[in-house]
Amino acid sequence: MTLTAQLYDRLSSLVVNTGWRRGRDAGPSIPKDLIQIARSLPGLRSETRGMAVAADVLDAYAVLDDRGKRTFFEGMRDGFDPEQEALARAAETWLKSRDPGDLESLSRLAEPPRQELLRRLNMAPGGTARLVGMRADLLRLTGGDTSFGRVDADFRHLLRSWFNRGFLELVRIDWRSPALLLEKLIEYEAVHEIRDFRDLQRRVLPVDRRCYAYMHPAMPDDPLIFVEVALTKGLPDSIQTLIDEARGPLSPVEADTAVFYSISNCQTGMAGISFGNLLIKNVVAELSRELPNLTTFVTLSPIPGLRSWLEERAAAGEAPVRALLDDPQPEALAAQTARYLLLAKDGRGRPRDPVARFHLGNGAEAHRVIAGADLSPRGRSQSLGMMANYLYDRTRIEAQHDDFTERGVIAAPRRLQDVARRADAEAGGTRTDAQT
Amino acid sequence: MTLTAQLYDRLSSLVVNTGWRRGRDAGPSIPKDLIQIARSLPGLRSETRGMAVAADVLDAYAVLDDRGKRTFFEGMRDGFDPEQEALARAAETWLKSRDPGDLESLSRLAEPPRQELLRRLNMAPGGTARLVGMRADLLRLTGGDTSFGRVDADFRHLLRSWFNRGFLELVRIDWRSPALLLEKLIEYEAVHEIRDFRDLQRRVLPVDRRCYAYMHPAMPDDPLIFVEVALTKGLPDSIQTLIDEARGPLSPVEADTAVFYSISNCQTGMAGISFGNLLIKNVVAELSRELPNLTTFVTLSPIPGLRSWLEERAAAGEAPVRALLDDPQPEALAAQTARYLLLAKDGRGRPRDPVARFHLGNGAEAHRVIAGADLSPRGRSQSLGMMANYLYDRTRIEAQHDDFTERGVIAAPRRLQDVARRADAEAGGTRTDAQT
Amino acid sequence: MTLTAQLYDRLSSLVVNTGWRRGRDAGPSIPKDLIQIARSLPGLRSETRGMAVAADVLDAYAVLDDRGKRTFFEGMRDGFDPEQEALARAAETWLKSRDPGDLESLSRLAEPPRQELLRRLNMAPGGTARLVGMRADLLRLTGGDTSFGRVDADFRHLLRSWFNRGFLELVRIDWRSPALLLEKLIEYEAVHEIRDFRDLQRRVLPVDRRCYAYMHPAMPDDPLIFVEVALTKGLPDSIQTLIDEARGPLSPVEADTAVFYSISNCQTGMAGISFGNLLIKNVVAELSRELPNLTTFVTLSPIPGLRSWLEERAAAGEAPVRALLDDPQPEALAAQTARYLLLAKDGRGRPRDPVARFHLGNGAEAHRVIAGADLSPRGRSQSLGMMANYLYDRTRIEAQHDDFTERGVIAAPRRLQDVARRADAEAGGTRTDAQT
Amino acid sequence: MTLTAQLYDRLSSLVVNTGWRRGRDAGPSIPKDLIQIARSLPGLRSETRGMAVAADVLDAYAVLDDRGKRTFFEGMRDGFDPEQEALARAAETWLKSRDPGDLESLSRLAEPPRQELLRRLNMAPGGTARLVGMRADLLRLTGGDTSFGRVDADFRHLLRSWFNRGFLELVRIDWRSPALLLEKLIEYEAVHEIRDFRDLQRRVLPVDRRCYAYMHPAMPDDPLIFVEVALTKGLPDSIQTLIDEARGPLSPVEADTAVFYSISNCQTGMAGISFGNLLIKNVVAELSRELPNLTTFVTLSPIPGLRSWLEERAAAGEAPVRALLDDPQPEALAAQTARYLLLAKDGRGRPRDPVARFHLGNGAEAHRVIAGADLSPRGRSQSLGMMANYLYDRTRIEAQHDDFTERGVIAAPRRLQDVARRADAEAGGTRTDAQT
Repeated sequence: MTLTAQLYDRLSSLVVNTGWRRGRDAGPSIPKDLIQIARSLPGLRSETRGMAVAADVLDAYAVLDDRGKRTFFEGMRDGFDPEQEALARAAETWLKSRDPGDLESLSRLAEPPRQELLRRLNMAPGGTARLVGMRADLLRLTGGDTSFGRVDADFRHLLRSWFNRGFLELVRIDWRSPALLLEKLIEYEAVHEIRDFRDLQRRVLPVDRRCYAYMHPAMPDDPLIFVEVALTKGLPDSIQTLIDEARGPLSPVEADTAVFYSISNCQTGMAGISFGNLLIKNVVAELSRELPNLTTFVTLSPIPGLRSWLEERAAAGEAPVRALLDDPQPEALAAQTARYLLLAKDGRGRPRDPVARFHLGNGAEAHRVIAGADLSPRGRSQSLGMMANYLYDRTRIEAQHDDFTERGVIAAPRRLQDVARRADAEAGGTRTDAQT
Repeated sequence: MTLTAQLYDRLSSLVVNTGWRRGRDAGPSIPKDLIQIARSLPGLRSETRGMAVAADVLDAYAVLDDRGKRTFFEGMRDGFDPEQEALARAAETWLKSRDPGDLESLSRLAEPPRQELLRRLNMAPGGTARLVGMRADLLRLTGGDTSFGRVDADFRHLLRSWFNRGFLELVRIDWRSPALLLEKLIEYEAVHEIRDFRDLQRRVLPVDRRCYAYMHPAMPDDPLIFVEVALTKGLPDSIQTLIDEARGPLSPVEADTAVFYSISNCQTGMAGISFGNLLIKNVVAELSRELPNLTTFVTLSPIPGLRSWLEERAAAGEAPVRALLDDPQPEALAAQTARYLLLAKDGRGRPRDPVARFHLGNGAEAHRVIAGADLSPRGRSQSLGMMANYLYDRTRIEAQHDDFTERGVIAAPRRLQDVARRADAEAGGTRTDAQT
Repeated sequence: MTLTAQLYDRLSSLVVNTGWRRGRDAGPSIPKDLIQIARSLPGLRSETRGMAVAADVLDAYAVLDDRGKRTFFEGMRDGFDPEQEALARAAETWLKSRDPGDLESLSRLAEPPRQELLRRLNMAPGGTARLVGMRADLLRLTGGDTSFGRVDADFRHLLRSWFNRGFLELVRIDWRSPALLLEKLIEYEAVHEIRDFRDLQRRVLPVDRRCYAYMHPAMPDDPLIFVEVALTKGLPDSIQTLIDEARGPLSPVEADTAVFYSISNCQTGMAGISFGNLLIKNVVAELSRELPNLTTFVTLSPIPGLRSWLEERAAAGEAPVRALLDDPQPEALAAQTARYLLLAKDGRGRPRDPVARFHLGNGAEAHRVIAGADLSPRGRSQSLGMMANYLYDRTRIEAQHDDFTERGVIAAPRRLQDVARRADAEAGGTRTDAQT
Repeated sequence: MTLTAQLYDRLSSLVVNTGWRRGRDAGPSIPKDLIQIARSLPGLRSETRGMAVAADVLDAYAVLDDRGKRTFFEGMRDGFDPEQEALARAAETWLKSRDPGDLESLSRLAEPPRQELLRRLNMAPGGTARLVGMRADLLRLTGGDTSFGRVDADFRHLLRSWFNRGFLELVRIDWRSPALLLEKLIEYEAVHEIRDFRDLQRRVLPVDRRCYAYMHPAMPDDPLIFVEVALTKGLPDSIQTLIDEARGPLSPVEADTAVFYSISNCQTGMAGISFGNLLIKNVVAELSRELPNLTTFVTLSPIPGLRSWLEERAAAGEAPVRALLDDPQPEALAAQTARYLLLAKDGRGRPRDPVARFHLGNGAEAHRVIAGADLSPRGRSQSLGMMANYLYDRTRIEAQHDDFTERGVIAAPRRLQDVARRADAEAGGTRTDAQT
């Protein structure tokens, strides 16, 4: 019996012994055996057997409990680094010779075998989706521990390559979409909860609603990210009005505005690999083609960091802000919100609000702040009911993106800038939080 | 005007100046400018602009003539190696510390920026197919020059990752397939020429014919590889009889044998990334499912190196072989063919015949040699009309693969082995060609 | 302005005047105008205009309230009979001549122009589905009134032709099916209510469940009829166990039995045009192909008429039955159920139970009666918890169909026949209900 | 054994006896047996058996030779008329009573059982396509014989109902269409021959070409009718230029004109059931949507009857026409062509040219005549190289259709009318051919 055949037999018995039951305490020996088998994977010369072992490893991984998975990740961390002695020799050789051929060897040996392991696991049926799930486990179970950083770096490196934008498909989702897919939207909606299929129907069926997602061919049942759009006449004043059940739908030909009111990532295993920027721009292009009467593309966005910033300002002794928290007058609240969006920075000098950071980074304009726009418990608690419109103007988006990324300039209408500056002056703070 | 905007303008004028005419002598300056623009690509932070620049680079590349393309590849070779000083520092640091964090930095810096360039180019619409085409150009224009080896290594590395088996689709091709796709079969058929659609129809329409291809989602109109199959009763004796136009088709339920009589790679840009092994095994599985009455899966394969080996043997003074070339008696010819397939080795100790090498490496058995099986001009000239059947027996394929790759054992029926050994003995040469 | 143009203008103003509001009291004049316009339809020579008028008539019909619709149907009844004088002349001519040419004229004139009207309306976009809906209205609003019989006959005649079996598609419905379609299943399920999408998921998603429907190409979003199937090991004893939420699914390869536990017609407008017979047989064929290990195909069926028949028997003085109603012992109840299914007849000598009639008419066997099999309120109230299995045995189905339709023979196992006969004898009634 | 079972056995042996060989002389007894079996079909109560018998009848029909088919059609003619005595009684009853119920009976009995036979045959797999083929046989084999008129009337009646416009799909055909479908275009192209796939490619692949077909869901591989369109800048002057192989394609956004240069019916079995009118109008609508820059929709049409009419006029003594035939000067020829299209009538007062009749009947305008526009042998021989443009102007199409069908008015530009009238006056004949 050859070595690979032995390993294969061992894996099979391993799989049988775990009893295929999820969450069972597999003890430390099983994930360790699994790692040893995984180590054989990059070396297998028979592709057919390689695929079979990859499938078995993923199957066996799936039945591990969290402790077992952590042990498995320790194995991935410690057992798949570049081969040290060979690499050291290659490094020394090249440092002396500076020869391109030696550099090529160095590059090759410096690539962690973990990457080849991941490529091999990806050959199993459904491998891509399962690796995305494995990375979600990795982030969840080893999140704070920097020693796993190189494991995650290899995951991210390959996912970025496999989920290259050129491979993604923009898909319109509507009431004719498969239930299997729609179900994922209910599960993943992060901004304004979808309760059930009835509720979802109101987001995708009416003629003045649109929903788009990015899909990857290797994960045909799993959207990566989706955005919900409402077609309106004029800018919307409230999220509750926008998604009101009793609302009569608007004929799309009468609409002049497309409102992006919710954008949700679906895969925690894809963290750090952003598609939102491109999705919004593609949907703007798609809608412009379909409905030439649309002139305005805005978001209706939450302002998640508003209240905590206001409380910070109040604690720092700003009287007008303290007054506002006691008795939030719409106009004064709007002014401080403008100040927050346009002037408040985080420790790295970026806009402090994460949603603002995302849209401004995409090249959008901070267009408007709206009092009383989100009266849900979360809306009241996070942002005292305030929301914002970010405007995507295709003629200015690239220039604004450059101004923002290269010089930190935030695009906003003159009026909003004035309001923000006045509110800043009144509060006496000259953007003092820029140091936080 | 920002730097990226300047570059973008420069590329646009470049594209306009080339006049978009293929094959025009662009002079050396244009590909050099192009490379400089390409160098900016990995650093672009706006994804939208990144995609636009990628598309423009590929468009501009497409209009270069061969000299321009070669200059472009020189730029890829010389301008996208790892940054030497930073890498040298990282190598020295790690050599001293042997710290995992330092190793991670070293790995990151050792990856040639060429790979990121290729990933960025892949974001352009149709990027994948165009990069496959670019590699075909690279192999054609720089083939013998080892200094381009690292450029090709990066191409191969990424193509291998993107064309991961998990992303491929096995597609049955028949007379209902798109003409666009069928046309590619006519173009790519490498073994037994397809003259036109009428001729192709005879390969895919009759009930006793099958054709399967691997497709990649990013190249929906371009097969990667395809195989043509004939369903027969018993082993076939001749390729001409097998694809005879006048032949009456056999009902698939009466067939007991599937004959793989042609397998063709479609993309020269995918050279070195083999799918044939997996394709045959997948098709065997697919046909077994559909037609449980099939018991035998064989190829009907050319023996391209037979005549030149016979001539070599004759020149080396082997009288029986010399006699054979003068007056090829079927039985004696078959015996020498068996000897060639089972005993003749190349300089690395592998079977000398490339087709034998491929199938034996897949775990197939060298099953039978057939005289007078290919009477086409090419068949006569390459192999004196001889062909071979390689047998894919699913119960033995993995074991045979292991025996072959680990110990060089060639699977063959006892009878054929005896014939080969006797022919070897008669010729007096005890496998003397093993040294060539 | 030509006549057709005038009519067209009139229809447009008619449509505008009704304000497109459903259910508005349109008064008697509008449906009458509508009928007059409809009368012009068969004569229109421009096909484009014909389609436009057809669409407008259907649009205008849709906004009528029930009174308006009834008036419209009166118009269809009175205004679209064959032209009497011409027909009378043709009849007299042929009665004298008995000439084939005269017969052809008679046939042509005897076809009610209503049929041509319906064919013309069917040209409107979505016409087929709307005509099916119109017939549902007709049955609902004029049900008892025999004077509308000829209107319905023409509807039925054309629907039968358009919904020819050759045009139907057997479609598997699962959790990947469009939500739009799944929603219809929730709406139409007639046997065991589906509460919502979650509940539906349990009927179509698990590996041991199947659902099939007949679809018509002109109604791509509307199933005609669907059947729900459970794969089991052995015959099922209870519907509640079968569709229990907590049940662990069975691997299909372990199943030996397919249970048809619900079959629902979706279109009341298709009443009298049955697809159930064919659907069951097609699904049996489909499942046999996919899962060769299935040996038994049975229904798990309600017995809707059982209690009322028992009460009738009790009222007629049958003591054992009266005792049974007071204290239903399973064995005795099963015996009387067997008697009911096998021996009780309706006024036309057919099996009295409508579900029995359907399955026996299809050639199935009355296979088994099961006590305590349906403990839902409806199950208890209609049939004291009893259910029946009808067996579809492909080798006997045609012969049993013939025996049943030609000689009234009910296929049942000897054992069940004996039980039924004994129960009959005990109750003293020798099938006395045959006279009812 | 029941009657139906006996019949079924007889059919099976019949089918076996014919040996399933097409064109074999089956002798008169087989088609007669077949008819007797067909007669049992409408009465079969088991749908499954009905479908099986229908399939067998169509299979057995397919192997008949022409003599056998004719005998079969005689059976259809003589054996499927309404039941005479019952019909006679119903006619007499109604003539007396004039009761609606009696009328309904009369209508029902007056429908030839042939129609039910055809509906039953349509239930066989592929039945629709085979019945269309059967009608093609009927027209070919019994064409001149009026006694078969009632058989054909029943075919036509049902095909018209089944191929209701509401069931048809407009399909764009391009180089991604299935080869199976494209092959039919090569086969059916009636106007400008397509030699092979290469030639076809030039009609469907270039960006300035379009091809559309009507398909029926029951015949997914068989187009009913298709039209070929060229996008041009300005009106085309010649069919040869239009389909020239060397032509460089025009970008669709630069085109202002869509030219319908070929329209072909595919099914001779659908004769008399026209789809061309609707197809052109649907394609005009489709193209207008896709390419808003298109302002002009014209045909480039042959004038098949021109030469024979000119020869007639010459024979009737018209000197200018005789001169023209000897020495065809473009301008004079164009004038006589205008006269032919606008003024020459057939015996029923309709435009004499069949192509003109078709387009004018659709509401098009006779827009232009072009000398030297078709220099193919057929073009020269039929029409001395002349072609015509018919203009489809969506704003005028309905009015022109009404004017033409109700009052015989031919739409044409003033200029062309003047030319035609002058040519008429010069020839001395004041539309004298109106009497022919």
